[in-house]
Amino acid sequence: MNTPATSFKPNPNIAPGPWLDAVTWNAQGLVAVIAQEVGSGDVLMMAWMNRDALLKTMQIGEAVYWSRSRQKLWHKGEESGHTQTVKDIRLDCDGDTILLVVDQKDGIACHTGAHSCFFLGWDAKASTWQKSVE
Amino acid sequence: MNTPATSFKPNPNIAPGPWLDAVTWNAQGLVAVIAQEVGSGDVLMMAWMNRDALLKTMQIGEAVYWSRSRQKLWHKGEESGHTQTVKDIRLDCDGDTILLVVDQKDGIACHTGAHSCFFLGWDAKASTWQKSVE
Repeated sequence: MNTPATSFKPNPNIAPGPWLDAVTWNAQGLVAVIAQEVGSGDVLMMAWMNRDALLKTMQIGEAVYWSRSRQKLWHKGEESGHTQTVKDIRLDCDGDTILLVVDQKDGIACHTGAHSCFFLGWDAKASTWQKSVE
Repeated sequence: MNTPATSFKPNPNIAPGPWLDAVTWNAQGLVAVIAQEVGSGDVLMMAWMNRDALLKTMQIGEAVYWSRSRQKLWHKGEESGHTQTVKDIRLDCDGDTILLVVDQKDGIACHTGAHSCFFLGWDAKASTWQKSVE
């Protein structure tokens, strides 16, 4: 499942509809989104989408999130160039989390320049989180 | 990274400390947790932990979440038997999401009996989410 043979294609003409209502939006009107790298299966990051972000993602085929800190749509890579091309999109059993399988431009998902945002590993000896080499 | 050579070991004696404060707990005192299957790299589910849940997870080496619907600690598999043994634990760049790499007992993570909770795929022709064969 981590390397799905998928045929996701963006649809510039898709409009809001029952498919958008099928998502379980939280009290803030958001859904959690996990971005996983196609091929490697690496979990890259977690972010959020609102209805507009999901609609836009389906239309252009690149990940568009909702930035909670900036309170606006965030076309991932709009500044860094590290866009994510959607290869597959899945919804979970209770509709409140989306799994986005993406082709990560330059292999860099994190704003720190790391491949994945999950670069802090557990150091049992020191009982702390440490930056670990990937 | 999806099949880490990890040496995570539970520590029955670990106590709350700076490592727990390093997590960015949200307004509800929770952190998002992504469970990924060791070996396959499949993303299995997303759930939440509070401080007690994360502490317990570190102590016993099995995933313990916070059930938002039942408002209590949820030792995953306590009823179904589908426990998750922790193989690796990672924190993301801003500390508000944990990646738990787990050995999923019986390969069943979802309460529906599915391997993964993300069994709803996108059906472009019908513009809807459909249960897809894994």
